[in-house]
Amino acid sequence: MSSTSNVSPKISLDTINPLVKEAQYAVRGELVIKADGYRQTLAKDPASLPFKKIVACNIGNPHELGQRPLTFLRQVLALCHYPELIKNEVTAATFPADAVARAEFYLSKIAGTGAYTHSKGLSFIRDEVAAFIEARDGHATDPEHIFITDGASSGVKQLLQTLIASPADGVMCPIPQYPLYSATMTLLNGQLVGYFLNEDKGWSMDLPELERAYDAAVAAGTTVRALTVINPGNPTGQCLSVENIEAVVRFCEARNLVLLADEVYQTNIYSTVPFTSFRKVVKDMGSDVPLVSFHSVSKGFVGECGQRGGYFHVTNLPADILAQLYKLASISLCSNVTGQLTVGLMVNPPKPEDPSGPAYAQERDQILESLKRRASKVAAALNALEGVSCQPVQGALYAFPQITLPAKAVAAAKAAGKPADTFYCLAMLDATGICVVPGTGFVQKPNTYHFRTTILPSETDIDNVNAALAKFHAEFLAKYA
Amino acid sequence: MSSTSNVSPKISLDTINPLVKEAQYAVRGELVIKADGYRQTLAKDPASLPFKKIVACNIGNPHELGQRPLTFLRQVLALCHYPELIKNEVTAATFPADAVARAEFYLSKIAGTGAYTHSKGLSFIRDEVAAFIEARDGHATDPEHIFITDGASSGVKQLLQTLIASPADGVMCPIPQYPLYSATMTLLNGQLVGYFLNEDKGWSMDLPELERAYDAAVAAGTTVRALTVINPGNPTGQCLSVENIEAVVRFCEARNLVLLADEVYQTNIYSTVPFTSFRKVVKDMGSDVPLVSFHSVSKGFVGECGQRGGYFHVTNLPADILAQLYKLASISLCSNVTGQLTVGLMVNPPKPEDPSGPAYAQERDQILESLKRRASKVAAALNALEGVSCQPVQGALYAFPQITLPAKAVAAAKAAGKPADTFYCLAMLDATGICVVPGTGFVQKPNTYHFRTTILPSETDIDNVNAALAKFHAEFLAKYA
Repeated sequence: MSSTSNVSPKISLDTINPLVKEAQYAVRGELVIKADGYRQTLAKDPASLPFKKIVACNIGNPHELGQRPLTFLRQVLALCHYPELIKNEVTAATFPADAVARAEFYLSKIAGTGAYTHSKGLSFIRDEVAAFIEARDGHATDPEHIFITDGASSGVKQLLQTLIASPADGVMCPIPQYPLYSATMTLLNGQLVGYFLNEDKGWSMDLPELERAYDAAVAAGTTVRALTVINPGNPTGQCLSVENIEAVVRFCEARNLVLLADEVYQTNIYSTVPFTSFRKVVKDMGSDVPLVSFHSVSKGFVGECGQRGGYFHVTNLPADILAQLYKLASISLCSNVTGQLTVGLMVNPPKPEDPSGPAYAQERDQILESLKRRASKVAAALNALEGVSCQPVQGALYAFPQITLPAKAVAAAKAAGKPADTFYCLAMLDATGICVVPGTGFVQKPNTYHFRTTILPSETDIDNVNAALAKFHAEFLAKYA
Repeated sequence: MSSTSNVSPKISLDTINPLVKEAQYAVRGELVIKADGYRQTLAKDPASLPFKKIVACNIGNPHELGQRPLTFLRQVLALCHYPELIKNEVTAATFPADAVARAEFYLSKIAGTGAYTHSKGLSFIRDEVAAFIEARDGHATDPEHIFITDGASSGVKQLLQTLIASPADGVMCPIPQYPLYSATMTLLNGQLVGYFLNEDKGWSMDLPELERAYDAAVAAGTTVRALTVINPGNPTGQCLSVENIEAVVRFCEARNLVLLADEVYQTNIYSTVPFTSFRKVVKDMGSDVPLVSFHSVSKGFVGECGQRGGYFHVTNLPADILAQLYKLASISLCSNVTGQLTVGLMVNPPKPEDPSGPAYAQERDQILESLKRRASKVAAALNALEGVSCQPVQGALYAFPQITLPAKAVAAAKAAGKPADTFYCLAMLDATGICVVPGTGFVQKPNTYHFRTTILPSETDIDNVNAALAKFHAEFLAKYA
């Protein structure tokens, strides 16, 4: 052993980054770790627990709960990974001509799926995204303003990392919010400036509350850098009207805030309010507000979470800031090619007149109609429970019901050292195998309790899930009456 | 517009995170941006420049430069993305039985490739990795100590983020180093504690230099948390002997440093020194030094950079630190499934007696033998140049020659506001289309100049690349004589 007088402290919870210790991500937290344990127990002895399987309602993971992938999309991915399927006439003949043509087009542009790409993503995929945005919003779109990312999450992190310059800097986020935002802000040592959504009005976004939150943050010494909107809402499911979006744009304009529009659920709409992108409203208004819009292949009717594909699109950002975002992206080299191709296939699906067009439309419509039925079924089932109130699920993939817990249950939770909603959700998992996320994980108004569950259990499963939840809920109330 | 007395400063280079501004990643920096511009120029007018194509020697991207993917690997990926290929007897019959069997095994364990996985990665892939490590090193390996990641880079970032607790914390890194380390340390606001590799002794790693660097850092008030070793070296290509590794382990043991072993080039060995993992040496020694080992599908003979697959494996880390790493991974949900499957296919290839075994071995051996020929060819061609000295390329995918630049060239670089090696590399790009990375990007000893180039141009190309470089070099020397 070499001699030394200098020695560093051993690695321990006391020496590592305190921000890593502090960060919380409830969507994969205590409940999920416990559910993983139950899964292993069930694999060894299926009769050892009061339920036969874990129902993963903690996360919007459509394929895990039985949603099937879109055929055209997977055909093109298979052909791109193994182009021999095209060269071999026998196998090529089993694919629709448009799938072969799309794969040939992609393959003509790249050295296969195995090469690093440009750090902003493949240029021909960015062209497809630009064409999609242009068609959706009716405004010219520059592919150079698009960055392809590993899911939307990595783009959100890149933006927040760029925007937070000091511990006094903050970003406004809805409360409740998707915990990616709170976890990332903790890791960046920035301020999460929460604005409350109005639960009584279907989780609407009210301007006076935005003003209150901004002014309170400034009064507390925070420099607010940006405002995040999740539309349709996660975990809350509300959809913003054009008037609402315009008000938010003006709010940000007046305060020089960068607008971060998390629009990953833009095709998950179940109400009569259609989706309108922030980009469209900003361009229609002729606003110069800096805007970054996020999208993903993980949600919608595509549901390809495992491919980790997404993009962000910047509007009204100075060129030198774009250059910084490019440099930051380059440190991660590039996002995965399968995810990039999946982005292209999501934004540029077969046209109705293409060979795969009718089948694609049928697969899409079946998924969306089924999601709509389930959104309404889940909200109704929750509202039928004593002391539970669930706002309409207008969009996205979740219900976020408020639960009134008996005083004895709150006391028992306190005695167990758990937030009361976590205590409730753990009891639900123990009794039913249904894994949901406590409202605490999304932040909520003080002295209110919620949980997030997904509408994704299949139509053959969802009545059973709702029934099991109702039975548990009644027994829980009886136990703590 | 809503009235407000509070207004935030507009987004600009002066308001964003100064660490993002400061971070540099030369592998995709100024040279690459200029090369991208030339690519676009050539696409419009192929005769407009003194060269016909850009040769991307800036990055280890094998498939981009013509290396073909391994057939078995791509067959299994295609089958997993589109399982109809197995169900259809006609297409299934075109695949070897072991590719079908592997895909069926993977598909039996997952809800297809489209679902989020466990944040540490799919358990059956971690089992395959554990079996690989066990067979390689002869020591029992726990799959729970393995985290599957989007390439090795994301794992390195997770570890550095966890280890750096304050701006006074540092991590020892080789100089020259792969700029992922310097860029990440800048972003984390930690101290890069450089230890010099000994160029005159083939870039060897000397204990007295480690001691000097550690003691100097401590004297300057830095708490050193970890030591990074890249073996085989990037950009330097050296391979460590067992004795060398043992000395490093003892060095870290004596100072309580976490050892970060970047072993992504472990199958790229061209010398007589075989690869030995840090894990094997640590276990053989019975050491309790905390060790994190990184591997990737992007290098070796697999070269699947685009899939973004990799893993890290922890040894001797406390369970509560593992739990923190798991939580941090969960904030990114999971790495992409294609990358995860590629990790499995890399560590568990067909056996010689399997239907795909002989073809797989042939593909592997052809790539490795060709890389070996090119490693020696590139070093010889560089050493034949006036004022250029290149150490033997014992491993990895790069040469890192030292160049002696004429005083007039150094003066011209200074006048242009560029480091002299950047000036030289820009001139090379302008004259030949060959894009390499200046030594500045890797950090180098003061008053020395280097560049990194890859040995990856194909065997049909490499003599032309070497000849073009030699012609440019002679002209450059003549111009600044």
